Amino acid sequence: MGNTVITIAREYGSGGRIIGKKLAEELGISFYDSEMIMLVAKKSGYTEDFVRKAAEQVSMSFLYSLYMTSQELPASDQVFIATSNVIKELAEKESCVIVGRCADYVLKDNPDALKVFIHAPLEKRIDRVKNEYKEQAKDYAAYIQKKDKNRASYYSYFAYGKWGRIQNYDLCVNSAIGIEQSVDVIKNYLSHFKGGNN
Amino acid sequence: MGNTVITIAREYGSGGRIIGKKLAEELGISFYDSEMIMLVAKKSGYTEDFVRKAAEQVSMSFLYSLYMTSQELPASDQVFIATSNVIKELAEKESCVIVGRCADYVLKDNPDALKVFIHAPLEKRIDRVKNEYKEQAKDYAAYIQKKDKNRASYYSYFAYGKWGRIQNYDLCVNSAIGIEQSVDVIKNYLSHFKGGNN
Repeated sequence: MGNTVITIAREYGSGGRIIGKKLAEELGISFYDSEMIMLVAKKSGYTEDFVRKAAEQVSMSFLYSLYMTSQELPASDQVFIATSNVIKELAEKESCVIVGRCADYVLKDNPDALKVFIHAPLEKRIDRVKNEYKEQAKDYAAYIQKKDKNRASYYSYFAYGKWGRIQNYDLCVNSAIGIEQSVDVIKNYLSHFKGGNN
Repeated sequence: MGNTVITIAREYGSGGRIIGKKLAEELGISFYDSEMIMLVAKKSGYTEDFVRKAAEQVSMSFLYSLYMTSQELPASDQVFIATSNVIKELAEKESCVIVGRCADYVLKDNPDALKVFIHAPLEKRIDRVKNEYKEQAKDYAAYIQKKDKNRASYYSYFAYGKWGRIQNYDLCVNSAIGIEQSVDVIKNYLSHFKGGNN
């Protein structure tokens, strides 16, 4: 087994990002979430702002059809391809934790990558989004569900599959047990994970 | 937190049953899989054979419509209701591991029950079904997929939901890491699980 590469997909407000960050700290390896934007910008020549905006929108199938005729990829597709290349290069180069960005899909043929999904009950997520992220929303449940829907659309557009399908992940954790505790569960699984389909 | 109750749903050939059995042994608590048939028979007055057969078939919606007119439940529904009652009583009475039987759904409002899903890559499952279960099939992949499809239909009929939906479980484990190792991951999660939505 080569590098220790852990991808983390997560429901909005489940604490997936902070779990990934702590995990990387405890393992003494790199952590990539928004850091990825800078890397992709550097690699592709796009501005960070362009990368950030493109990553937030999924091209419509109409735009995609236009591309098929014009032979020029929509911005979000170009950014996704650039991001995928950066993810693959990182996985080759170093041990790291990568949050979001369909990294589990990008590395689906890399058996050395441990694929994790973090979720939590809605009431726990509302509490975190309100009191920790300090985000403002009239209807927190609707706000969170919209965020999840965006993630699911993004995944289903780029990864040709259903976001949050158990079989895409080696380990799915309900983070209601706590952040430190979820990190511990991932570390425990990792201690048994030999890669190469074990 | 009361009893330690762990439900295990599993893909066919993933080793979920043996993982549940070892987990129960290591925790020194009861284990219920086919043992459930005898309990349900005893409780309901049906024969064990009737319970076994009814549990394998999902009533067709046509039969269900007939029931709506005749006011008499189809056999599989009667057995499901009897099984649900047994599961709820067991969870009240003692610490235990319960495999299959939509136990996660039956105990969905019991926050003290830890809900686990075990899956594994198809090639691992073919290997287990062929070499450990010693089952005969012309096409093992098709055989396994049919078994999973039956489980999914059963779940979707009785539990009104999608079998293998991440959010139904506290922990989903790819058992490719090994049986003992999967048991250890569940025990680790359990050590952090306080129940009552934590």
